[in-house]
Amino acid sequence: VLPKTLGITGIGLLGGSIAIRARQVFKENIKIIGFSRNPDKIKALPQSKVFDEVLSYSELSKISECDLTIICTPVLLIPKVFKSIKTFLKSDAIVTDIGSTKYKIIKEISDSSFIGSHPMAGSEKNGFENSDPSILINATCVITPYNNSESQVKTVSEFWEGLGMKVIKLPPELHDEIVAQTSHSIHIISFLISYTLSESKYSNENFYNIYGKGLLDTTRISKSDPEMWYDIIATNNENILEFLEKFRTNLENIERTLKDGKNLEAIKKIMEKAKEFREKL
Amino acid sequence: VLPKTLGITGIGLLGGSIAIRARQVFKENIKIIGFSRNPDKIKALPQSKVFDEVLSYSELSKISECDLTIICTPVLLIPKVFKSIKTFLKSDAIVTDIGSTKYKIIKEISDSSFIGSHPMAGSEKNGFENSDPSILINATCVITPYNNSESQVKTVSEFWEGLGMKVIKLPPELHDEIVAQTSHSIHIISFLISYTLSESKYSNENFYNIYGKGLLDTTRISKSDPEMWYDIIATNNENILEFLEKFRTNLENIERTLKDGKNLEAIKKIMEKAKEFREKL
Repeated sequence: VLPKTLGITGIGLLGGSIAIRARQVFKENIKIIGFSRNPDKIKALPQSKVFDEVLSYSELSKISECDLTIICTPVLLIPKVFKSIKTFLKSDAIVTDIGSTKYKIIKEISDSSFIGSHPMAGSEKNGFENSDPSILINATCVITPYNNSESQVKTVSEFWEGLGMKVIKLPPELHDEIVAQTSHSIHIISFLISYTLSESKYSNENFYNIYGKGLLDTTRISKSDPEMWYDIIATNNENILEFLEKFRTNLENIERTLKDGKNLEAIKKIMEKAKEFREKL
Repeated sequence: VLPKTLGITGIGLLGGSIAIRARQVFKENIKIIGFSRNPDKIKALPQSKVFDEVLSYSELSKISECDLTIICTPVLLIPKVFKSIKTFLKSDAIVTDIGSTKYKIIKEISDSSFIGSHPMAGSEKNGFENSDPSILINATCVITPYNNSESQVKTVSEFWEGLGMKVIKLPPELHDEIVAQTSHSIHIISFLISYTLSESKYSNENFYNIYGKGLLDTTRISKSDPEMWYDIIATNNENILEFLEKFRTNLENIERTLKDGKNLEAIKKIMEKAKEFREKL
């Protein structure tokens, strides 16, 4: 069942991409209301015409019109925004979100109208001006039902599928454990590579020509927004720590082998296993 | 001065790309002789027509025709190949290479006809069939003169520049120290991410949809050839170790901060510095 009225609270890269894509696929069959800290800035952008209305957070009472509301803010704000809109929600309204971590948010919100979503789409950029509806097409959206009804699951799944996403259902704890390994820890490692390079005596423009494509690809995600990633790390620190410890143990093994120098073949075996796994993805 | 006859020993992705590009830019003004362990396999590929001759290593005496020979083998083979061709070289012949490490090779070869080159172009693929001359255009080529004459430096520089590369001159030790940081250690870290993920209980195809673009970019270079990387690591282990130790110290700091949980803002500062540096590249 397509929601008649969709609320988007937080009009950044992902909230904007969702609104634009919803307008593309659902045409005039959906009303889209956007809420922003800075509605004037949003309305100054030509792509804001995909919204029927762009309102400030002081006009949140208009959430009462929305059948489905997607909270599109950084993770730590999601429970706060939920609290602000809760009083205005109509009885059968559904609220979801786009947060990259799920368990702590869901526990904090602890409300049957809320069902967690994690559309796995984005970019190292941010802001409505960088919105790109194509990032949603064929991307995965994990939904993490937790005390939700079948009909809530169905509405939210169909909405994301309608945008062209592939929906996977996972328990919130399992979701957080997996993305800690496949995304969150990887971002920290990428940030750490750039950080360690920034401390090098060769981190100046005389040498930038020597920075190859491998390095640039490996550190692309270290251009991501630290504010956004702070929230993700703060709400998934235990799972991230667990993966980083395994990674560091493997790193220490390599260091010992390099230092000792007698059994460098062991590093070749690690590279072979790594390559074999990576080729499958 | 354009060499009249160019020798390419080892016809893989990079040797092949150099030959194809040399034919594109120098047209019929250059004769190109390729030497391969498996000349029949090379000659079966249509792009082998860029060579005037494709010979086996048993015909290395034909090196006597070459003004410039580029040894395009994995790093540890470079001194061995040099030794095999040395007896056939004419008196003013120049030999260079494409190895990703320079100091140990140059010391081992220790011959005034040899001048080290490191064209910083490549891909996670390998083999002549994956050759792509465009990878050379605008890419950097480091040359590392060491007891070489001005005219040798000039000939080799002009050759790489003729292919469309940007030539930088560096002492071999400095070259190795810098690329340990900007490439070799980064490859090891990327291999280690894939390796650590391969050990996870979620490393099966049920979860591959959850592996995001950030992870795929960060681990692209872990699809590189372990044989080739073994040689690079074996000839630059001390510099690599130095960078990996710094990286690990920073990683341990993050782990402590995550475990303690009280000062997560410190991680935000690291991410901000990382992003600021990465934006410059």
